[in-house]
Amino acid sequence: MKELQKILSQRLKEKEPELIKLRRHMHENPELSFKEEQTAQLIADFYKGKDCQVQTNFGGGYGILVDIQGGKPGPSLAIRADFDALPIQEDTGLPFESKNPGVMHACGHDGHTAYMLILAETLIELKAQLPGRIRVLHQPAEETPPGGALGMVKAGCLDGYDHVLGAHVMTTMNVGQIAYREGPTQTGRTTFKIVLQGKGGHGSTPQDANDTIVAAAQFVTAVQTIVSRRVDPFDTVTVTIGSFDGKGSANVIKDKVELVGDVRVMKESSRGLVEREFKRLLEGICLAFGISYELDYAHDYPVLVNDAELTAMFARGTKAAALDSVTEVFRCDQQTPSEDFAYYAEEKPSCFFYVGATKAGEVFYPHHHPKFTIDEDCLLIAADVMGNAVLTYLFEGV
Amino acid sequence: MKELQKILSQRLKEKEPELIKLRRHMHENPELSFKEEQTAQLIADFYKGKDCQVQTNFGGGYGILVDIQGGKPGPSLAIRADFDALPIQEDTGLPFESKNPGVMHACGHDGHTAYMLILAETLIELKAQLPGRIRVLHQPAEETPPGGALGMVKAGCLDGYDHVLGAHVMTTMNVGQIAYREGPTQTGRTTFKIVLQGKGGHGSTPQDANDTIVAAAQFVTAVQTIVSRRVDPFDTVTVTIGSFDGKGSANVIKDKVELVGDVRVMKESSRGLVEREFKRLLEGICLAFGISYELDYAHDYPVLVNDAELTAMFARGTKAAALDSVTEVFRCDQQTPSEDFAYYAEEKPSCFFYVGATKAGEVFYPHHHPKFTIDEDCLLIAADVMGNAVLTYLFEGV
Amino acid sequence: MKELQKILSQRLKEKEPELIKLRRHMHENPELSFKEEQTAQLIADFYKGKDCQVQTNFGGGYGILVDIQGGKPGPSLAIRADFDALPIQEDTGLPFESKNPGVMHACGHDGHTAYMLILAETLIELKAQLPGRIRVLHQPAEETPPGGALGMVKAGCLDGYDHVLGAHVMTTMNVGQIAYREGPTQTGRTTFKIVLQGKGGHGSTPQDANDTIVAAAQFVTAVQTIVSRRVDPFDTVTVTIGSFDGKGSANVIKDKVELVGDVRVMKESSRGLVEREFKRLLEGICLAFGISYELDYAHDYPVLVNDAELTAMFARGTKAAALDSVTEVFRCDQQTPSEDFAYYAEEKPSCFFYVGATKAGEVFYPHHHPKFTIDEDCLLIAADVMGNAVLTYLFEGV
Amino acid sequence: MKELQKILSQRLKEKEPELIKLRRHMHENPELSFKEEQTAQLIADFYKGKDCQVQTNFGGGYGILVDIQGGKPGPSLAIRADFDALPIQEDTGLPFESKNPGVMHACGHDGHTAYMLILAETLIELKAQLPGRIRVLHQPAEETPPGGALGMVKAGCLDGYDHVLGAHVMTTMNVGQIAYREGPTQTGRTTFKIVLQGKGGHGSTPQDANDTIVAAAQFVTAVQTIVSRRVDPFDTVTVTIGSFDGKGSANVIKDKVELVGDVRVMKESSRGLVEREFKRLLEGICLAFGISYELDYAHDYPVLVNDAELTAMFARGTKAAALDSVTEVFRCDQQTPSEDFAYYAEEKPSCFFYVGATKAGEVFYPHHHPKFTIDEDCLLIAADVMGNAVLTYLFEGV
Repeated sequence: MKELQKILSQRLKEKEPELIKLRRHMHENPELSFKEEQTAQLIADFYKGKDCQVQTNFGGGYGILVDIQGGKPGPSLAIRADFDALPIQEDTGLPFESKNPGVMHACGHDGHTAYMLILAETLIELKAQLPGRIRVLHQPAEETPPGGALGMVKAGCLDGYDHVLGAHVMTTMNVGQIAYREGPTQTGRTTFKIVLQGKGGHGSTPQDANDTIVAAAQFVTAVQTIVSRRVDPFDTVTVTIGSFDGKGSANVIKDKVELVGDVRVMKESSRGLVEREFKRLLEGICLAFGISYELDYAHDYPVLVNDAELTAMFARGTKAAALDSVTEVFRCDQQTPSEDFAYYAEEKPSCFFYVGATKAGEVFYPHHHPKFTIDEDCLLIAADVMGNAVLTYLFEGV
Repeated sequence: MKELQKILSQRLKEKEPELIKLRRHMHENPELSFKEEQTAQLIADFYKGKDCQVQTNFGGGYGILVDIQGGKPGPSLAIRADFDALPIQEDTGLPFESKNPGVMHACGHDGHTAYMLILAETLIELKAQLPGRIRVLHQPAEETPPGGALGMVKAGCLDGYDHVLGAHVMTTMNVGQIAYREGPTQTGRTTFKIVLQGKGGHGSTPQDANDTIVAAAQFVTAVQTIVSRRVDPFDTVTVTIGSFDGKGSANVIKDKVELVGDVRVMKESSRGLVEREFKRLLEGICLAFGISYELDYAHDYPVLVNDAELTAMFARGTKAAALDSVTEVFRCDQQTPSEDFAYYAEEKPSCFFYVGATKAGEVFYPHHHPKFTIDEDCLLIAADVMGNAVLTYLFEGV
Repeated sequence: MKELQKILSQRLKEKEPELIKLRRHMHENPELSFKEEQTAQLIADFYKGKDCQVQTNFGGGYGILVDIQGGKPGPSLAIRADFDALPIQEDTGLPFESKNPGVMHACGHDGHTAYMLILAETLIELKAQLPGRIRVLHQPAEETPPGGALGMVKAGCLDGYDHVLGAHVMTTMNVGQIAYREGPTQTGRTTFKIVLQGKGGHGSTPQDANDTIVAAAQFVTAVQTIVSRRVDPFDTVTVTIGSFDGKGSANVIKDKVELVGDVRVMKESSRGLVEREFKRLLEGICLAFGISYELDYAHDYPVLVNDAELTAMFARGTKAAALDSVTEVFRCDQQTPSEDFAYYAEEKPSCFFYVGATKAGEVFYPHHHPKFTIDEDCLLIAADVMGNAVLTYLFEGV
Repeated sequence: MKELQKILSQRLKEKEPELIKLRRHMHENPELSFKEEQTAQLIADFYKGKDCQVQTNFGGGYGILVDIQGGKPGPSLAIRADFDALPIQEDTGLPFESKNPGVMHACGHDGHTAYMLILAETLIELKAQLPGRIRVLHQPAEETPPGGALGMVKAGCLDGYDHVLGAHVMTTMNVGQIAYREGPTQTGRTTFKIVLQGKGGHGSTPQDANDTIVAAAQFVTAVQTIVSRRVDPFDTVTVTIGSFDGKGSANVIKDKVELVGDVRVMKESSRGLVEREFKRLLEGICLAFGISYELDYAHDYPVLVNDAELTAMFARGTKAAALDSVTEVFRCDQQTPSEDFAYYAEEKPSCFFYVGATKAGEVFYPHHHPKFTIDEDCLLIAADVMGNAVLTYLFEGV
């Protein structure tokens, strides 16, 4: 295997210019979640004439499955890359800046897909020597609930596969750093929208109205007690009301307020607790103030729980490979964002790891920022590390 | 009538030493509401051998009715004086200080009864010349809800009587001042007690407990909105939580809180509004926080509403009398305390007026204060003014 | 005077068609506060060639003063009518509906000005017989603080005049009803705008942000205690936060909230109390939550305090006139809206009275409603009642 | 060493009756923190005539140091047992129930000291064969801040010693179970007391008072935001207001409220954050409501952080010993109570472990409960496990 890994690394290195080119093309032509028609076409076209099986429009969106059958018997592994962009107006000034106004690859999914295409192509070239099977999951719509992963899982994208690997570039980590964590790693999320309906009226006759702003303020205050008093202090939960829309006039008592927010959890069992408390608080406060309400309370991405054994294999294999470009491999803290890769991890033992994307010492912008930029050196590293993990898995098992 | 009024005044003046003596005796021997056995005996003894009809133990307590039948036909008038004391340890240093530890005439009811006895005695002496009938209501238990007036009214103390007069000495007014007001004059009151029951537990495991202090604090906060948002700004309402009993330990989540307070209104119609809102807030907040509660919500004294015509008669008659000792007769502001005289005023057109009890320029203590003291000159004035009002009523009508 | 009053009434009656025509023309051509160029021109044109002195553009806006010098010596009186419209899209379906999109005479100022023009014209005709002087105040911009009255008072519109009268049509009263009240009659007002600035951030990392919605909610809650605990229960104060603008995203902690609202008082002395408490609460809550703020706290219209004697004269004179069209003259309750007529009343003894504008038993819409309509019969009544008050004042004095 | 461990176990086993007797004697004669005079005397007497060095009254209380010098050179280890009781009225019905009314060994410290005496005695017997030095820390006053450990550490009880071991019996674990955890294991604690001073007054005149209950309620509510919004969701912090003492009368506005509570943290760095936020909230809310305050905010026990290497040694050694009586050795969750053993762990690398004290399947009562009882079998196990850990440390090192 050591030999094969060297060959794989070498070939990937040779294809770096093509990788960069692919990534820049996608960066210039970003598409929003569930609308990635041209990107999906580009991916499908890439595989044309290559020795693999391709399924398109998989899972209710533009999902694509690419199956690579190794030359020898062995285990089966799915590897995932997402390809949607965000509703953000790019402000990077890059020569290959987005051509689609208000749409931007501000989370690195262009890079994910580019490295995965190059890696898949190379694995196809080497497949005769591989024990087992590989399925590449090109997934749309990671950014927008319900997320592309859910549909693909429901449609059976993991049927017959044993494990799943995925990766994300991170501008908060330096190029050369690789991070992993077993167990609960990224938060699960619930989003909610509440419409509170009181009764309008003139500010000087409050008794004839029912001040919805006053009731909503009490609710916002009461909601703080979920985290402060109802959640086990050793758990991780946030409840945020990110939007309080009660715009009105100085002298008119407001009849309607709309609250929007989200809940993050690190244990699926916390979800029910928070939902129960949230709904009870809402019902109680509305009863107290004589306010009616409509609530839309929607669970979306699960907690991303990495499998302990697969993650240990990944860490061991990555350290053992001792790639020149990889300077550090470490166990990271839990991460606050949510990821629909969590749906794969609910279905099969999975590992989602992180690839540093900022040159050491340089200024970086957070994900989803209009100036978000990755250092492109990270893409070859991602291909190399993922390639090595695939080989380790196929040859050594978990 | 003018002549008779002069005779009345003269006789009252002659009896002032006896008036003072009676008052001091009662001051020295105060008794708590509903326990005024000896005071009632003193009153009953006073009338022994006098030409009047006396009923004792009237209205479920130590109430006494004294009927004085005038020599000529005419209207019928009830006049009221209360005689209970308060659970306060006297600290006046008077030579006739209370002999009953922790019990004190700190609201002047000793003076009310003393002047009324002397006045009644004199009216009995003059009764042959009086057109109409007078009933003296010696009332117990003004200080403690449900109050002595309620029982007396229910037992029929006003049956067959047309109007009612009452008076209160006031240390906030100067000796010589007489004040009156028509319409809503003293507040109605509701008292409440809430026991909130959550669940105790260790401070470091809030998820296993239910913090009653947190829920009670939200309720206290929510209650503020009754006055700020539910009551007509032109109305007068207060809602006070005067007691928040949640004493416990630093590291134990409190399982139980007891709240006690009262509501004051100046319109009977506000009572229902406040009760409805109060109960809804309590139910809603308890639902919101998963807390159970017991509520004791008790309306007691009504709003004291003075009859406009009777009050006008009182003002006119008092001004016309031009008594030397009366320096000013004025229409006062509404008063915040509650008075069970309000029950008489609900039943029959009534007037409750105020008699200044502090020598001009002297320091005074508020009612219910351990150092509360009246200037005894006010008592003859009270007798004189009430006597004149009785004559005006009987001779001139409303 | 009785004779003259009959002549005045007769002439006004004859001019009713013209009154209606003028009113409809203005209704069709409404102009917003401080932009009433054409309305002012219409008024000025009306007086062209009439025997009076006219000053235009008075007081920093389109104010117009019309002086009518009586033929005999006597007292001096100012009478006021306002003429601005509101930023409301009319929805009455009247044949003379507003031609200016989004602008509407929805408070009856068109009627005020129309009746006043006809009345002024008639008083000019009769002026030889009048003792004293009359100044008509055609005032712009009543609807929008700082209001047109303030500028006119500052520019001296009341210099040399003893008293002021004004009137408002009221759809809440029936045609034929005339109402008045001495003392504090309409509320004084303060408007405020607060910008709260916390710190944005991702919903799952609250410790790196500072949630402005949470702080603002606590402020809204705390503000309720001004009315519930800081204001004398016998006073009338409202504090309304009519706008809570904190619109944002579900998963982003809000960095900025804008609150807008107003304060109403019935005693000028309450203003300082509320301002002091409001500012202290804001400063304290912002300190507590580490939030910075900008506050714009602007007192505008004063409490409208009608002069007791002038109001008594108005009531007496109106009742004495026994006009056929006037069915009831009564002392009304205090009114919650604010009125910049209050500025005149601060300067000189004044009386502002109310003229019913809804036919008995008919459905009516509140002032400032898109369907607000007056019954035009009220306009001749307004002219008649005001005319009679002018004559009473000039001939009989206060 | 294996041989020596067998001998140690054997001897301990032989002394079990004496161990039980000692424990029961102490259980019958409990003494409160900082008042353990007789218990200390008992301990000191126990060592009389034994070949060790004893220091009494060490560290400002009844602390006792017992030094055992091994026959060979080697490392140095301190081992700690606490000996104070609690202000609880025992309700176990045991034959050896507490003779001191209101004082009870309700946390097992009697057992800690009993097993430690027997173990120390045995180690003294075997000391010629031991490489290195052992110091037994008999510590008073674990239950009451500032705690006995602090004074002993300050007085130098660990000077010249490399590591520290301690143990606690746990009724929440079965007899035979041994638990450990490296890193932050028990919470750090801060206690606070706030006296809020507003202004009293009659419930019907709130404007003349300043309602302290209202302000305190807002503070309780505001404090919830520390955990909900200021603390990293991955951290563990609780803030509990366990006592809200605002008892008063229904109709009197409360002038004073006393709040008492505590803060628990699992990282020392959280302490400063919470303190800063807590103080700012208090200052801001008091400013907002015009309330003055006094705050006593006292950090007491630190977070107990077990040393990773020493804990690994303990786990390894305990598992390797394979004692018959030990059925399970496991890494436990973090524990919410605080422990003043944390002061030793701040000074030197330490390990504090847990010994199951309830027979499997039996009902148990939590620590500090009037019915708290340990199964005495756990005491020999504690001696055995601690003895084995001492040998492992001395012979094998960390």
